[in-house]
Parts: sequence; C-alpha cells; structure tokens
Amino acid sequence: MPRDCAIRNYLFETWRTVARRCGYVEYEAPILEDTGLYLKKSGGELSVQLFRFEDQGGRDVTLRPEVTASLARLVAEHQRNFPKPLKWFEIGQCFRYEKPQKGRGREFHQFNVDILGEAGPAADAELIALAIETMLAFGFVAGDFMIRVSDRNAWIDFAKHHGVAETAIPEFLGIIDKIDREQPAALAAKLAVFALTTQQIRAFIADPANASNAYLAIHEDLTSRGLGGFVELDLSIVRGLAYYTGVVFEVFDAKKSMRAVAGGGRYDTLVATISDGAADLPATGFAMGDHVIRNLIEETTHAAMQMEVWLQRNAAACDVYVVVADETMRAAALQLVTELRRAGISTDFPLTPAKVAKQFQNAGRSGARFALVVGAEYPQLKLKVLSSRAEESLDATSAVAWLTARLQQPDGPLLA
Amino acid sequence: MPRDCAIRNYLFETWRTVARRCGYVEYEAPILEDTGLYLKKSGGELSVQLFRFEDQGGRDVTLRPEVTASLARLVAEHQRNFPKPLKWFEIGQCFRYEKPQKGRGREFHQFNVDILGEAGPAADAELIALAIETMLAFGFVAGDFMIRVSDRNAWIDFAKHHGVAETAIPEFLGIIDKIDREQPAALAAKLAVFALTTQQIRAFIADPANASNAYLAIHEDLTSRGLGGFVELDLSIVRGLAYYTGVVFEVFDAKKSMRAVAGGGRYDTLVATISDGAADLPATGFAMGDHVIRNLIEETTHAAMQMEVWLQRNAAACDVYVVVADETMRAAALQLVTELRRAGISTDFPLTPAKVAKQFQNAGRSGARFALVVGAEYPQLKLKVLSSRAEESLDATSAVAWLTARLQQPDGPLLA
Repeated sequence: MPRDCAIRNYLFETWRTVARRCGYVEYEAPILEDTGLYLKKSGGELSVQLFRFEDQGGRDVTLRPEVTASLARLVAEHQRNFPKPLKWFEIGQCFRYEKPQKGRGREFHQFNVDILGEAGPAADAELIALAIETMLAFGFVAGDFMIRVSDRNAWIDFAKHHGVAETAIPEFLGIIDKIDREQPAALAAKLAVFALTTQQIRAFIADPANASNAYLAIHEDLTSRGLGGFVELDLSIVRGLAYYTGVVFEVFDAKKSMRAVAGGGRYDTLVATISDGAADLPATGFAMGDHVIRNLIEETTHAAMQMEVWLQRNAAACDVYVVVADETMRAAALQLVTELRRAGISTDFPLTPAKVAKQFQNAGRSGARFALVVGAEYPQLKLKVLSSRAEESLDATSAVAWLTARLQQPDGPLLA
Repeated sequence: MPRDCAIRNYLFETWRTVARRCGYVEYEAPILEDTGLYLKKSGGELSVQLFRFEDQGGRDVTLRPEVTASLARLVAEHQRNFPKPLKWFEIGQCFRYEKPQKGRGREFHQFNVDILGEAGPAADAELIALAIETMLAFGFVAGDFMIRVSDRNAWIDFAKHHGVAETAIPEFLGIIDKIDREQPAALAAKLAVFALTTQQIRAFIADPANASNAYLAIHEDLTSRGLGGFVELDLSIVRGLAYYTGVVFEVFDAKKSMRAVAGGGRYDTLVATISDGAADLPATGFAMGDHVIRNLIEETTHAAMQMEVWLQRNAAACDVYVVVADETMRAAALQLVTELRRAGISTDFPLTPAKVAKQFQNAGRSGARFALVVGAEYPQLKLKVLSSRAEESLDATSAVAWLTARLQQPDGPLLA
C-alpha cells in the first residue's frame, strides 16, 4: 500500500544517502541464485528455510535468503577490476520461508554494507562508524541504541587455553552463542563436556581485560571520530553463522536489550570458500533489515516525527492541484498543468468536469499545499493556500516561477 | 556491477520523479504471487514462461511475470479506502523464463503506471502524457520517438459490421495483432475464414476516418498540452494480451520503427475478473521495461550524454578524499572525515598508512573532486582540486563550510 511503500522509500533513501556519504559504492546481486552457492557458503548444511525450487531448465535455484554469498561470488570473479579495499553496499529484497512474526516477514529488504580487501581493525571501525551514522541519520540519539562489539578470536584463544580441541571450536562457539537462551542445567551439561563451568564463561565475559587488541583499536578509532560512546565490549556476542572469523558486532535497541537491529562481523575466509580458492580477500560486513528498524522508528517519538515530516513532503499525491472552475478553459488548464509538471512541480487536476466544491475537496485529500483555480478570468488565476485558505491573484505566465520559489520554502510563512 | 547498478538508479530516479510530478502515488506489489492469479487474469491459459514452483507449504506460486494482475488484486481489495481515480505507479522486478536476448532478460525491472476508476478518454490522455514526459525526461526529443495509438473498439465495430461472430472476435484481433509478422498467404487464409481480405484490412488501417471518438478526444487533449505532435493513429496496433478492452498504445523508437519501448492500454474488465466481480473499476495502464529504454538511451547521443553527466555526479565513490600525510595526525583526520560526512559530503580516506603519492592515486581513482591533505601543519589543511591540480590552504574549522559551498557549484570555476 502507498504508505508502506513511502516508508520503504524513506528507509532506502536514508540507507543510500549515508552509505554514499561514507564512500561506499552501490551494487545489486540477483534475487534468484544457484542453490549450490548457499550450500558452499554453509559447508553443505542449509540452516535456513529456503524458497528453493527447480526451474523449467532443471536447475536447482533459490530466492536469496541473504546477500553475502552473492557478494562473495561477484567479488571473487571481478575483484581484479577494482582498487582495494572495496567498499560496497546493496539495498535489496530477501526471502525466508518461515512463519511471519513481528519484525520478521517472509519477504523483507536488507541494507548490506561490506569492506573487502582490508584485514585490519580500521576496516571494522569504518564499518561500525557507518552503522552508527545510519542510526543517527534516522534521528536516533545517544541512549536509543548501542553497538556491542565482540571478537571470536578472544573465544578461540580462551578455548585453546582451556584445552578445547581445534575441531570442537565451532561447537564451543555455538554454546556461547546461545548462553542467554539456554536452560542453566542444559548449559552446564554442554560446557562440562569441555571440562568448563558456566561460572568460568560468565567471568570471562565480565572481565574487560579480555578485550582483544582488535577491539581496543576499533574503540580508539571510533573515539577519534567522536563515536566512542556508542560502542561497548560484549563478549557474549558470537553470532550464529559459522563463517564469521573475528570481530563481530550487533546494533542493539537500548530500550529492549534483547532486540538486535543490525549485526555483522568479519568473514575473512568466505571469498576463498565460495571461489574454491580462486580468490582470497579478507572481509567485514553488516546487514540491517527493514522490519525491525521500522518498528524501532515507529516506537521512538523523535525518530517517528522525523519520518512523518519526510513522508508529508515526499509521499503526498501532489503539491499543486489545478481546479478547473470553467470547463471552457480546460485547454488552458491542461497547458498550465504541463508547464508546472515540466518545472518539477508535482501537479494534479480533475480528469473530468466536476463541481468546484468537489474539486477543492479532492485537492485537500491529495495532500496538495496549493490550489490554482483556472476560471473565466484566465490568464488571471486564483491561488489558494489549502491549509490557511489564504488567497491571492496570480497571472498564468508567472505561476511556475511563483510556485517554484514558494515550494522551496517548505516551512516558511504560507504566503510571502 | 556498480556501473549497471548506477544506470538502474538513473532509470528508477527518472521514472519516480516524472510519475510524482504528474500526481501518481507509488505502491509495490509482492514479487511472489499465487499462480492462480495469473491463471485468472489470462482466462486459464498461461501464455508466458513462468518461474513457477511449489513452496515448502505446498502452495503453487510464481515469480511475477508482470505487475498488472497484482495491482488489480490490490485495488479490488482496498479501493474503498482511496478517492477515485487512483493514479498509481510501481517500479519493480519481474521474471520471465525464456532465452535471454538483447532487450529481454530473464530478470528485468518495469515501470508500471495505471489510472483506475475513470472510463473516459481523459484518463488515457493523462497516461499517454506521462509516457511522453518520461521520454522527454530521459533527454529524448521530437524525432526520437512516437506514440502510436489505436482502439480495439474500432476493430470490434469493423468485425461486427463484417459479420464476425461475437465469440470469434478475440481470434480476429489475434490475426490483426500479427498482421506485419505473418506470411501473406497464411494471413489471407486466416482472414478468408471470416470472408475478409488482406486488402480490406489494410484499407481500414490506412483510412484516418476510422479513428475512434476516444482517439480524437485523446489527440485534442494532448494537443492542448503541446504534446499532439508526439501522437499518431496506428490501427495496426492491437497488442497481444487478451484483457485489453479499448484504447491501446505503444511508444516507438522512431529510428527502428519495429521496436516498442513501452506500451499499454485500457483493461476495463480485469479488476472485476480478478476479484470475481466483487469490485469493478475501469482502468488504463502502461509499462516500460529497463532493458530496451537503456539500450535506446545508450544509442542516442544526447540522451546518453545526459545519463553520463548524472552518473558522474551520482555514482563516484566520493566527492572528497582525505589524504593522511602524517600518521600522527590520523585521529584529527578521522574527526574531519566524520564532520564532512555528517554535513552530507561524500568522503573517503585510506584505512591504513600509505605513501602520499599512493593516496593521491587512490583519490583520483575514487572519482573525488577534491583531496584534503591532513599533515603536520594541522589544523592548516592543504586542499587540492584533482582535475586542475590547483591548490590552496584551508583551516580545518572552515573545511565543511568551504566544501559544502563549492560542491553546490558543480559546473562553476574549480576554485572560487
């Protein structure tokens, strides 16, 4: 429906504007991919419910559940044509076959941002800075959200130090990932397999001395940018997907501490995996979906008001409604409508004869700010400000210039 | 790839801008639809190759081949909430399972524009005006394209007058639709079934007196708008789809007379068909795909140049590249980058230490217009115009204001 579409446009425009400001270049991957791509990425095990089918040519294809696999494929193939690091973003549709619920639909849009070709923490900091700038651009302020940063390498060091076998590390990370959702007894039993206790894990998470050097470098970088206050260490974050390799982070709604608005991290081996070793690029990326961020905006008064102002300016059917008060003047009205539109002014008019009162009613419903009345006195026009009902006379030859100037002052007094 | 994505954005922005100027409201229909919707629309016979499959819940679903069926479904359900006529547009992806060829891909984007709830020719004229304004907005001029308008009702009257049975009219229209692609003997044989000759058909097409009243009203309306010269009668146009009911039209490339860039027409019974009679709205609509229009722009020098100017301004990685000439000043550089970005200036910088010459090389590759050098003299900065190599000194505190002002004069002298 038009209002949902306008809100989608607001999210897309904000995402695109912030990414472009931060020097990212836009790409778009196909919506339909070979299913083998996702099998490769996940090591043969598809953990998500897919819209997967055989096409009329017998190919096993899937409506993409996410974009990172496609990005890795594209970059592996084309990276030689671009200087490194690549800073790329994408805004597009994804699909997930599961029961729709609040914040999760079967069809959704994602903002994907990635830096490829730079292994150091400066890339992670640059990416997290973009995540923060995105939240600020939506009108969120300090206290609305936090970026919680962790590092899988801190856990890998911990695991090695405590004698966890290299091959068991993915399983170990899986336990950490679910630590706050697991029953205490079940958690203890799972950790006991590695001769570890819940208390040891909690103590490791609680001690800021366990911050990795990468985390410290990221924090210092973001502090230089004036963004240090938005970031905190949280080693309980591991992120579920198997392909993450180092620093991982989530953007959290500060009001409901369990709700992640966006997340991401390093995936230094994925490009090599997808390309069967043909290309090898360190990478870090993050994704933000449209459903949760829209909910958060609508629940946060200052962000919601900013969106409403944008919607009023960008989602009305028109700015000017031309009222045809005398049908013998319809040809003149059509000419005027054409001139206004050509000058970039969003203009509508009644397609068929209607009473003037009815036309003013439609003008009001259209969201127009001005009604321009073409009657027997043409080329003299009557201009009506629809909010205040203020009126003045205008010559047809000066209508375009007058309205162009007036529409550039959206918040000024209604008649100059 | 980024360049293709930027061209896509140029098409989308132009489409959206023109539609909004002309008072159309944007909506977006789902990409995945129940296959039954397309069976209903086509009367049970699917004439296009579909990406059709059974989802994990056993539903027969299809990646949409077009948007009109979805629009009819949406409007039938929600029309009571909106004043008539509805003027709606959509920009989105469609899928077609067929051999890819020039101007036709398996995956493509379409600009769909429709007016629902108005049966008279004023709606057709308003829609054709939008088609013309779209072409003009892409930089095409008189002589580059023509709108050829026809009316199925003229052929229906002709058929009735010549004794063609009511039930045989769809078959008769199908013959007319293929008149220029059919072998003469085969055509003559098909017409002979209706006791008609090719000569009779050609004579009917050639006689301007056969223009319908709807065509005459449309021509008069568009002439009032100064757009009459872009429109001509062409009764050989019938358009293949069975659901068209009256006026139909195509936007033709004037250089290659057989290439249609866009097309549309009336479909007064479709909403009732899709909704099983629950809603009944006359309607007219048109669609323009991204592949053919892109080809036509690239082949037409003045339209191609306009697009290149847009791409240069909107698809560069950044406007300003901050060069870190002294690594001890990195924190200051990060702060400056953040301030520039926050002010809406697209800014990039080297994530890791690099030689100054290398940084200038990357600045050049990024498409930036300015390099801002942060060195030991900070807060004094050196500003370099990358195209002319002109240089000047700038204080860090005034950099945002200076660059904001300069970037608003894209074509002015490079240093004010």
